[in-house]
Amino acid sequence: MDQTEFRRLGHILVDWIADYRERLETLPVMSQAEPGQVRARFPPAPPERGGGLAAAISALDELLLPGVTHWNHPSFFAYFPSNTSYASILGDLACAGLGAQGMSWQTSPAATELEEVVTDWIRQLVGLPPEFQGVVQDTASTSTLTAFLLARERATGFSQEALGLSGVPPLTAYASEEAHSSVMKAGLLAGLGKEGVRLLPTDSAQALRVEALEAAVQRDQASGRRPCIVVATVGTTTSTAIDPVAAAAEVAARHRLWLHVDAALAGTAMALPECRPLWAGVERADSVVLNPHKWMGIGFDFSAFYVRDPRHLVRVMSTDPVYLRTAQDGVVRNLRDWGIPLGRRFRALKGWFHLLDEGAEGLRARLRRDLDNARWLAAEVDRAPEWERLAPVPFQTVCVRHVPLGERDEGRLGEHNLAIARRLNARGRAYLTTGLLRGKPVIRVSIGALGTGRRQVEAVWDALREEAERDR
Amino acid sequence: MDQTEFRRLGHILVDWIADYRERLETLPVMSQAEPGQVRARFPPAPPERGGGLAAAISALDELLLPGVTHWNHPSFFAYFPSNTSYASILGDLACAGLGAQGMSWQTSPAATELEEVVTDWIRQLVGLPPEFQGVVQDTASTSTLTAFLLARERATGFSQEALGLSGVPPLTAYASEEAHSSVMKAGLLAGLGKEGVRLLPTDSAQALRVEALEAAVQRDQASGRRPCIVVATVGTTTSTAIDPVAAAAEVAARHRLWLHVDAALAGTAMALPECRPLWAGVERADSVVLNPHKWMGIGFDFSAFYVRDPRHLVRVMSTDPVYLRTAQDGVVRNLRDWGIPLGRRFRALKGWFHLLDEGAEGLRARLRRDLDNARWLAAEVDRAPEWERLAPVPFQTVCVRHVPLGERDEGRLGEHNLAIARRLNARGRAYLTTGLLRGKPVIRVSIGALGTGRRQVEAVWDALREEAERDR
Repeated sequence: MDQTEFRRLGHILVDWIADYRERLETLPVMSQAEPGQVRARFPPAPPERGGGLAAAISALDELLLPGVTHWNHPSFFAYFPSNTSYASILGDLACAGLGAQGMSWQTSPAATELEEVVTDWIRQLVGLPPEFQGVVQDTASTSTLTAFLLARERATGFSQEALGLSGVPPLTAYASEEAHSSVMKAGLLAGLGKEGVRLLPTDSAQALRVEALEAAVQRDQASGRRPCIVVATVGTTTSTAIDPVAAAAEVAARHRLWLHVDAALAGTAMALPECRPLWAGVERADSVVLNPHKWMGIGFDFSAFYVRDPRHLVRVMSTDPVYLRTAQDGVVRNLRDWGIPLGRRFRALKGWFHLLDEGAEGLRARLRRDLDNARWLAAEVDRAPEWERLAPVPFQTVCVRHVPLGERDEGRLGEHNLAIARRLNARGRAYLTTGLLRGKPVIRVSIGALGTGRRQVEAVWDALREEAERDR
Repeated sequence: MDQTEFRRLGHILVDWIADYRERLETLPVMSQAEPGQVRARFPPAPPERGGGLAAAISALDELLLPGVTHWNHPSFFAYFPSNTSYASILGDLACAGLGAQGMSWQTSPAATELEEVVTDWIRQLVGLPPEFQGVVQDTASTSTLTAFLLARERATGFSQEALGLSGVPPLTAYASEEAHSSVMKAGLLAGLGKEGVRLLPTDSAQALRVEALEAAVQRDQASGRRPCIVVATVGTTTSTAIDPVAAAAEVAARHRLWLHVDAALAGTAMALPECRPLWAGVERADSVVLNPHKWMGIGFDFSAFYVRDPRHLVRVMSTDPVYLRTAQDGVVRNLRDWGIPLGRRFRALKGWFHLLDEGAEGLRARLRRDLDNARWLAAEVDRAPEWERLAPVPFQTVCVRHVPLGERDEGRLGEHNLAIARRLNARGRAYLTTGLLRGKPVIRVSIGALGTGRRQVEAVWDALREEAERDR
């Protein structure tokens, strides 16, 4: 493809994206494809001859869209909001066009320095103290794994420089049973084993009970294990519950545990001063992760990982082969030493573009709109006969279930509510996912797509009640 | 930003990229920026008001380009070729525009199924047997870490399901001393420790000596360690040396080691049938990584990781929380269980776009052009008085140094050659990096940018000789 054809197809594709976004509301939110249906449209072998792209771009609607679940749909209430703003799309386009590789400072100084700028802007937006330094990772799973590796190496006096974990006493990690599955996965991959990861019981608001944490740490110490990390979650996945960060920090300090704060979703809310008391104590964390690709509108993948002690991060993550040394080592950041992968995309561009376009004011207004919509829905649910709200609503997620009059069988109640969600999703008007709170299936209404206004929240509430009636 | 403004800025940005690419040859290849120079152009705090994107896009040339090292420049001979073709740029644009999340099949069936299609196309292109199943990771570092985790869990009977590595005998890994730094990093992060990673001496062609491997494994077994993985590199970073894969596979089979083949760069060359004998034995590997974002022209990040036993991969990587369960589990692939991160971009799009545009024929013709250019340069160096070639040239990298008549002091020779590269890079006409082979600094000429023809290879050879004269 030459430059002329690139311009032509590029303009077509920009317009295709704009058209796609304009008609999002006419599409079913969750893909209605059957397994294998998309794959069957593609030839099993790669093309021998080139030149087939223009035809494929013309056919994107038929080839791809039936297999796409529309995360930017204004009636997307599943999982978590994860939108790519128009500005962020453009930032990713610039990133691909430059094709710069940010593994070392020298391999593209702008990629490193703009990442310093943008992660520091985000730090300021959410009110983390200046001693936290940020780096972009792909996901919170990777950020949390990185935190586990940092904690492991601190707790073992750098076992990686000797025999690794062999011969080290069993290490233990702590989080609430509502913590994200990536916490357990990080423990497994870091070599602690399932028996080394303590998922502790929560209180009535699904938050970590600090007495349980203290007791577990003492028990493990007494039995010869070595406690090394506690993860405090601010905004759990199912219900956005909030672990008491300050109290966890006390325990961490007392027992020299690494404190990792997982605010993957709710970290964005800290752009609102009124939300910041909810993570009070975060300033004592060793590491914090928040995902601007959730709710902030910066396109996936953009997980912001902050540490208080970058030298420790670099010591754990750096290798220093001759072929990667440059004249500026020691003076600049080489971001290859700030995480697992060596190569790095110029992801700061999409963050920069998005923040320039929305501005702090715009972000705050949008977040307040979403919090307000969540409070409205919570009040509706509280008022509605036969509906229950199963968790507090500190942020944008409302966990609900329908309890038909007289129905007390938990098994049937669970099935009924799963059926409501399944049928609503199959109708395509909205997309919701479910979770489990204290053994009870709940329908999660996770609000915060860029295009979601009161109208869509009202509509999903109507749709929930309709489906509940149908399933009687 | 509304749709109209998105269209307007999108068209501007597409044209900016085309303009940028058209004038690449007028720009210095390696950024000439000083540390801090880019950062100083950005305000220290995020903008309070939005709406600033159009102005920033107009100012990209001044704000960013001085800080960009141009990886797509036709005179880029540093590190490894890592280009983003026009087609791949468009694929990334479509990916950002859709903003789909491919963590589970249901969260966007097309993202999962097209990834199955495209990784299988690439498998066919490079001639891996059909039992290998592929998944896209960000980098070879992550793919290799994943291989280490798979090997660790196989060797320990799933220690992650119990106490982790505590109490397990020390595990050991093997690779040549020319293996990429990500191999050591994977060993450190997987918990084996530096003392568990054996970097073995190489032969005169910088390839792993299999007798050394066999001896090291036996020594470790005798001393109570548990050998668990060998990495065979096909195309080492410094000189593209080739470890004997078939012989390593014999050792691996004899001692039940995991065999991981790192063909990050050179895997692409296997699209040429005439290159395939160079990795004979690869069909016996447990895992293989090759990076289509190197030399194949698919934009970073696109590392293709193949395993023979996906069930083992899934067992190590999967967590199965309630909030991620879907109706299709067990029937479809959930790619969150095929690697470390949970969330996944729709990276298959850029691979699909690129392969449609170039076709297998086009790819083979381009690779043969590059191999031919490398052979031409090698012959020139061999003929030139005062120049030495320090390694065989099986692929596209030529390792050279200048040895002024009568100069025998290795220290001065090293300094002289580093100075040649440094000065050439500072002039901006080309970009080269250096490495170390048997203690001797070498200048690496790594050929294979999409736009690199014979003209640019001749020019860099002229420039090397000029700089050598200047430094006398």
